[in-house]
Amino acid sequence: MRAVDLIQKKRDGLELSKAEIEWLINGYVAGDVPDYQMSAFAMAIYFQGMTTREISDLTMAMVATGEQIDLSAIAGIKVDKHSTGGVGDKVTLILAPLVASFDVPVAKMSGRGLGHTGGTLDKLESIKGYQIEIEQEQFIKQVQDIGVSVIGQSDKLVKADKLLYALRDVTATVDTIPLIASSVMSKKIAAGADAILLDVTVGEGAFMKNIEDARQLAQTMVELGKAVGRKTVAVLTDMSQPVGTSIGNRLEILEALDILQGKGREDVTHFICELAQIMLGLANIEKSIDEVRQHLENGAALQKFEEMVAAQGGDLDDLYRPVNVAYQVDILAEQSGTISALPALEFGLFAMKLGAGRAVKTDKLDYESGIVFAKKVGQSIKENEKIATIFSNIKISDEMLSEFQKNVKIEDVVVKTKEILEIVS
Amino acid sequence: MRAVDLIQKKRDGLELSKAEIEWLINGYVAGDVPDYQMSAFAMAIYFQGMTTREISDLTMAMVATGEQIDLSAIAGIKVDKHSTGGVGDKVTLILAPLVASFDVPVAKMSGRGLGHTGGTLDKLESIKGYQIEIEQEQFIKQVQDIGVSVIGQSDKLVKADKLLYALRDVTATVDTIPLIASSVMSKKIAAGADAILLDVTVGEGAFMKNIEDARQLAQTMVELGKAVGRKTVAVLTDMSQPVGTSIGNRLEILEALDILQGKGREDVTHFICELAQIMLGLANIEKSIDEVRQHLENGAALQKFEEMVAAQGGDLDDLYRPVNVAYQVDILAEQSGTISALPALEFGLFAMKLGAGRAVKTDKLDYESGIVFAKKVGQSIKENEKIATIFSNIKISDEMLSEFQKNVKIEDVVVKTKEILEIVS
Repeated sequence: MRAVDLIQKKRDGLELSKAEIEWLINGYVAGDVPDYQMSAFAMAIYFQGMTTREISDLTMAMVATGEQIDLSAIAGIKVDKHSTGGVGDKVTLILAPLVASFDVPVAKMSGRGLGHTGGTLDKLESIKGYQIEIEQEQFIKQVQDIGVSVIGQSDKLVKADKLLYALRDVTATVDTIPLIASSVMSKKIAAGADAILLDVTVGEGAFMKNIEDARQLAQTMVELGKAVGRKTVAVLTDMSQPVGTSIGNRLEILEALDILQGKGREDVTHFICELAQIMLGLANIEKSIDEVRQHLENGAALQKFEEMVAAQGGDLDDLYRPVNVAYQVDILAEQSGTISALPALEFGLFAMKLGAGRAVKTDKLDYESGIVFAKKVGQSIKENEKIATIFSNIKISDEMLSEFQKNVKIEDVVVKTKEILEIVS
Repeated sequence: MRAVDLIQKKRDGLELSKAEIEWLINGYVAGDVPDYQMSAFAMAIYFQGMTTREISDLTMAMVATGEQIDLSAIAGIKVDKHSTGGVGDKVTLILAPLVASFDVPVAKMSGRGLGHTGGTLDKLESIKGYQIEIEQEQFIKQVQDIGVSVIGQSDKLVKADKLLYALRDVTATVDTIPLIASSVMSKKIAAGADAILLDVTVGEGAFMKNIEDARQLAQTMVELGKAVGRKTVAVLTDMSQPVGTSIGNRLEILEALDILQGKGREDVTHFICELAQIMLGLANIEKSIDEVRQHLENGAALQKFEEMVAAQGGDLDDLYRPVNVAYQVDILAEQSGTISALPALEFGLFAMKLGAGRAVKTDKLDYESGIVFAKKVGQSIKENEKIATIFSNIKISDEMLSEFQKNVKIEDVVVKTKEILEIVS
């Protein structure tokens, strides 16, 4: 086989065989197929797409280029969850212990965030002492013992994805569904899950800007999961405004603790209970929303969370401490009306400037800084009423204040919001 | 500027500015823009195309990456000619001295052939002693003295094209009009011509398989030439069957000598006179076909050819020697009828197997071998009448004979042929 012929085949809109895809991916990882052929191939995929069969073969070929986690020592159906990312997304922090509190094992590997706020890992690391790098054996033992662990993704998984993602990043071939789907799913499959819940975020603050693209990505990944023997459900969720009330690493831990105690905002609490219900369903456990919610009210989920934090070295005494920042600034409404928009991307970038997120991989995070919203989209507000509080260790300039205000849209309208837009299964 | 943003811009169908194109090409030649970004960019061009303005800017940016030949020391309008290649294409061998015989200077740099038969350079090198690598100064002096020189293209011209062509070749991005047009035209412009005749070959044996693609390429190059101040005319010419009667390096020299003496086949002779008429027109010299042809009949063109061969070290005594091969096999018609097809590509590949062309760059040519057709498409033939003679230094197997026969189509039909299909100016 010659790489140039396979590139041309894809360029001309033809379907590649399993053997051809495997040859290309193995050759790429081995260094026999150079970057310049792979980037041309990725661009050809951008324009010509791939069939579900090709995407499945690509995904499994990628999985085979790295270690695969064997979770078989853990009894029961292991359900994993993945989000395509957003702003203020602390869902995993609550969902993992909540599902585990129903005796469904959650052995989750998570990624770090680039841009906007940190990823789930960064948020967990903002807990004093919490270890995200633990040995596989210990990881499995923890899930056997207490039913839940969230750790950093092993560097040894899906070697092809690491190479390919870095290449796509500099060749304008990131946003193409076959390559997004295979990247996400190869990591989930290599991480050993039996079933997968995909949270495909939609909106200006997400990877997928519109519902059509998000739906197509979700459908692709669900079909792909099924094709490779993993029960997969995708939910399309709104990312036009931040998730919940907080953006920022420790601020989101604190919000998660509120939700885990049944003291969170109603909308985000209900949303997480819906996701938990789907994850439990994937493990063949049927529960009503009320039954799920019960585990927030009665402390069962919180207990799991604390058990996990303790097991991974986190300091429970420090856990509930309020954030410690030099500046705390309330933002008041400049007019009365209904909040019609709190654009997620803008507030994510704002939080990044406070130090809550990274502009480049090597940036060090300020775990304490961030934003807490007092009101969200759809709520009415009076002039001079508090919209949000900024927590910062850098002085907030007038320019930043006016940038914040500019992004708060208040109008005389009725706005309905919805967390789950669609379920694809 | 970042290469990834420019790739994305093209990927999204937007027009790149002159500064952006220059930045990309200069960065590529300097090694700052890596191959993997350039190949993704080329693939984006494959799908999104380029405007004439972009192609002009690309071409001139490429020209600027290498030496530019200054032909101003040669008086008059210098007209260059380029063919997109074909089988049995000995046109330049006759055209250059024919045009020069009208006192229009022809200072031509030519390329080598890969695949099928050799290029013009290989054919010239099959003349004993002929030097294709001569110093620029001497090249210019020869044109000043005798009006014509055909030499090898300097390695110092259009550095970007050398890099880009090698990259396109292995990334399935060769056959895209903006990149073909800029590759051809950058070399012609760097070679210093004032006006350019483009022979865009069409058909199964050519780069452009159908007239629509050929027309689009021709129009693109003609517009491009005008945009950068070079008078440019393109002719679309038929490459469904080989040009003239012979395929093979010395065999084509011998056919060229026949044509230069007015003893060539009528069709190819007339065709070359038409091209000469256009080239003379580009130099503001209006001649009738008969006036042009006069210079074949009266030996003026032949004299120029011999002067050129002698000036470049060629042995005139050896020039007219018949080819010297171990095997000479006549191919006889298996039935009576009209020859309806002699597919150029197949006979080109056949000649390559005899050693007349290269499969890879490093192959050594057998200058003496090849094919001479006794009949061409449209001619009637009787069973057992000679169609062609194979000249070879390897024994012709029965398998090769039957392959040859299989490619000769004889039917009971009337077939009309035409050399020049269209003129684009």
